[in-house]
Amino acid sequence: MDSILFRKNIRNGNFTGQTSGECKNFVQTNVVILDKKHAYDFLVFCQRNSKPCPIIEVLDPGDFEAKITAPNSDIRFDVPKYRVFMNGKLREEINQIDSYWNKNLVTFLLGCSFSFEHELVESNFYLPYYNSSKTVPMYNTNISTIPSGDFAGNMVVTLRWIHESRIEEVVEISSKYTNSHGSPVHIGDPEKIGIKDIKNPDYGNQWINDDKNYVPVFWACGVTPQNIALSSNIDFMITHSPGHMFITDLSTRNKN
Amino acid sequence: MDSILFRKNIRNGNFTGQTSGECKNFVQTNVVILDKKHAYDFLVFCQRNSKPCPIIEVLDPGDFEAKITAPNSDIRFDVPKYRVFMNGKLREEINQIDSYWNKNLVTFLLGCSFSFEHELVESNFYLPYYNSSKTVPMYNTNISTIPSGDFAGNMVVTLRWIHESRIEEVVEISSKYTNSHGSPVHIGDPEKIGIKDIKNPDYGNQWINDDKNYVPVFWACGVTPQNIALSSNIDFMITHSPGHMFITDLSTRNKN
Repeated sequence: MDSILFRKNIRNGNFTGQTSGECKNFVQTNVVILDKKHAYDFLVFCQRNSKPCPIIEVLDPGDFEAKITAPNSDIRFDVPKYRVFMNGKLREEINQIDSYWNKNLVTFLLGCSFSFEHELVESNFYLPYYNSSKTVPMYNTNISTIPSGDFAGNMVVTLRWIHESRIEEVVEISSKYTNSHGSPVHIGDPEKIGIKDIKNPDYGNQWINDDKNYVPVFWACGVTPQNIALSSNIDFMITHSPGHMFITDLSTRNKN
Repeated sequence: MDSILFRKNIRNGNFTGQTSGECKNFVQTNVVILDKKHAYDFLVFCQRNSKPCPIIEVLDPGDFEAKITAPNSDIRFDVPKYRVFMNGKLREEINQIDSYWNKNLVTFLLGCSFSFEHELVESNFYLPYYNSSKTVPMYNTNISTIPSGDFAGNMVVTLRWIHESRIEEVVEISSKYTNSHGSPVHIGDPEKIGIKDIKNPDYGNQWINDDKNYVPVFWACGVTPQNIALSSNIDFMITHSPGHMFITDLSTRNKN
């Protein structure tokens, strides 16, 4: 589906699901909304941690239209589901955020691995949640980020099971999408990156593969700022709900 | 030469020249130093204009060591030549800036096309200024940037003459270096990007090629912020002098 029509469906309340598999020609993004007093530190955080937080667009303070990557969008309504964090705690999960909006809010759009999943599926990689009601499994890890101001904490990753004969291929495909997390951050051993129970993802749904020929492959994830919000006690932050992304008008064919 | 030794030579006053052709294994960067009150707008400017302003590192306010990309460096001394801008005018060109330093200054390191010139030279492209006392020609253009806060103005570009049979090759090589300006922004007609007199570069030295088989190829340039400082009347900004770059410890083999 076309990104403009898809955002309209979300705005009208006709789509509130996860977005893996949707709008296959268009770049999907994570969303982080902060008071402008935090904006500089967060932007430097993203620059220092561009693997989990590749910046696609920064809106001017108070602006709710992503003028560069999604003209006529409205970030208060065009995300299927949002999370509101207050003082390091998740306060609520809602479908629109106009009641929270004020002129000091700055919106950041960060690249998402869903943007390269279409090419994976076209190359016959199996992703059980793609175009379904389920969400990719995501985990908090022990991979530390480089702090900036109040923002500090560990990286979140997505998991995809890949046949051992096709590891090189999946690395090659995802590497091209440098602004959508690019190549994996870890291949093979969940415990090495601090994941104790692969059956219990911290976000999204369980996806287990007991076939020994399949290897768990982990990519940096734009849910990282949500983990950072929790561990850094940021006073106020709105994000998308994991898996429920904002869809831009950027073409996924421009891999950067 | 090793980047650490090279910076030491600069710090000791033993090297004050342009840096094309120096330290061939190491990423070179443009330098922009601003009061922290401008830092957020400038960082967003770089994000919106990543072709001329690809960010390599942002130092914390007051820090003069590039802790991530050049540990033990000192940005007050380790650049061969600096420019000091005040109220939209070039005030002076000096070899160290410790007299201007204060705890509110924020340093930005931006990628530089010199980082891909080594591969060009190894591929037998001719660059007359490489490893010489001359500097690549640079021009102000009519290519507008996307503004952010007070920062607005036109892009600066570098010029290299390339044989028409090798355009594709030079595009391919430079494209890999996405954090060092990547592919050219214009090929062929200087007037189309607002360059009226190719014989008079706005920065660097003249390089003319009357052989009709050679085509002028233009890359986005990290001197752009200096042009922006002039056109936007920024009250205070220190930069490197065009062509006199800061050398990091990052390997040029990591093209990103």
